[in-house]
Amino acid sequence: MVASEFVSELRNRYGIEFHDLSILDEAFTHSSYVNEHQELGLKDNERLEFLGDAVLELTVSDYLYRHYPDLPEGKLTRMRAAIVQTRSFSAFSKEAHFDQYIRLGKGEENAGARKRKTLLEDLFEAFNGALYLDQGRQSVIEFCEKMIFPKIAAGQFDANRDHKTALQEYLQKDGEVEIAYHLLSESGPAHARQFEVDVTAAGTVLGTGVGKNKKAAEQAAALAALEKFDDSDK
Amino acid sequence: MVASEFVSELRNRYGIEFHDLSILDEAFTHSSYVNEHQELGLKDNERLEFLGDAVLELTVSDYLYRHYPDLPEGKLTRMRAAIVQTRSFSAFSKEAHFDQYIRLGKGEENAGARKRKTLLEDLFEAFNGALYLDQGRQSVIEFCEKMIFPKIAAGQFDANRDHKTALQEYLQKDGEVEIAYHLLSESGPAHARQFEVDVTAAGTVLGTGVGKNKKAAEQAAALAALEKFDDSDK
Repeated sequence: MVASEFVSELRNRYGIEFHDLSILDEAFTHSSYVNEHQELGLKDNERLEFLGDAVLELTVSDYLYRHYPDLPEGKLTRMRAAIVQTRSFSAFSKEAHFDQYIRLGKGEENAGARKRKTLLEDLFEAFNGALYLDQGRQSVIEFCEKMIFPKIAAGQFDANRDHKTALQEYLQKDGEVEIAYHLLSESGPAHARQFEVDVTAAGTVLGTGVGKNKKAAEQAAALAALEKFDDSDK
Repeated sequence: MVASEFVSELRNRYGIEFHDLSILDEAFTHSSYVNEHQELGLKDNERLEFLGDAVLELTVSDYLYRHYPDLPEGKLTRMRAAIVQTRSFSAFSKEAHFDQYIRLGKGEENAGARKRKTLLEDLFEAFNGALYLDQGRQSVIEFCEKMIFPKIAAGQFDANRDHKTALQEYLQKDGEVEIAYHLLSESGPAHARQFEVDVTAAGTVLGTGVGKNKKAAEQAAALAALEKFDDSDK
């Protein structure tokens, strides 16, 4: 069963009270836990993840459609992709403390699955699938009004967002890290100069980027680093 | 403006009556028509397509979730992918005669765009986006109850209908991959011949299968590969 302090936390932080707690349990049960406790006949959260994925996709799409009446489809799609992705959803899971309450098998627990971004993404989707089933789509919209929409309004997912800031936020979420950009090369004629830059954290190279000035190359390097983190979290 | 015979057809065939006809117009206006008639200041249907895509994704996901309580997530996902795709949506557009009413620019008309599957897919999504905005999600559900759900119930999108096609769709969702089937062995007497086949993607063996003819063995190999992906997706 889901811990009672989590039930209280959902009520106090988000005003959410499940009618059917068994569906909340299901959302917080990883397949590894089901496999290690077959005698309990539990369900894992994968079907709820399937449903929650689609609920969130519509909820975010509807918000973007209505709040950006002048954005063309291509920009809406890019913005949606920046929101509906592993990095964002896993961060929302952590912000809501979902990571503390998922039931994992011992093997997965020891393998560090509780911090795995794809697991946290799936969990965020499963929670929203459970909320949708238990209370309807309006409740998911209200949850997103607390969890996601203010971040969209603050420009956190803007397509032309600053990748250097995003990388800094990502790397420093657990404390200070020294991040540095270095010019590796500069080439080409004056009218078509090309700059190559790398970015390091505590001395380790995270990514390299190329651009027509140093600033553009730094942004490209930061984006390359962010994309590498996305991949390695999968 | 959308033709009045189409407005009648929507009413008579599907019981749909738009409150705001301008939004129906928008759904049936291709960007090529907007470009050729810039003096009219029209909107094309691409933003509605963005919204309708997400509305249909949830509507289909919700149906599958509730009607197949015992299907694991991997199979639900494959079934959804078989429904929410160009081939299906373009066929629905034609079935509803949407292809007769879209407003195209002359250049696109001459290029045969009215029969282009991706255009018809986009149109189906845009129509459902318009329906959602004009009348809410329940109307989209009711339209899908006429247009899509009976086909699902009839098994038209069953994941295990054709495993080779399902595997191809799964592997090529992010781009082309070379898939090949090879006969490994042929044994047994003439009346009980047994064929063994493997399937490879870009040279890597994904699964093997056995059957009483080559075709059956290939289907079994494709299914083995799909089930391996189901497991590794967990």
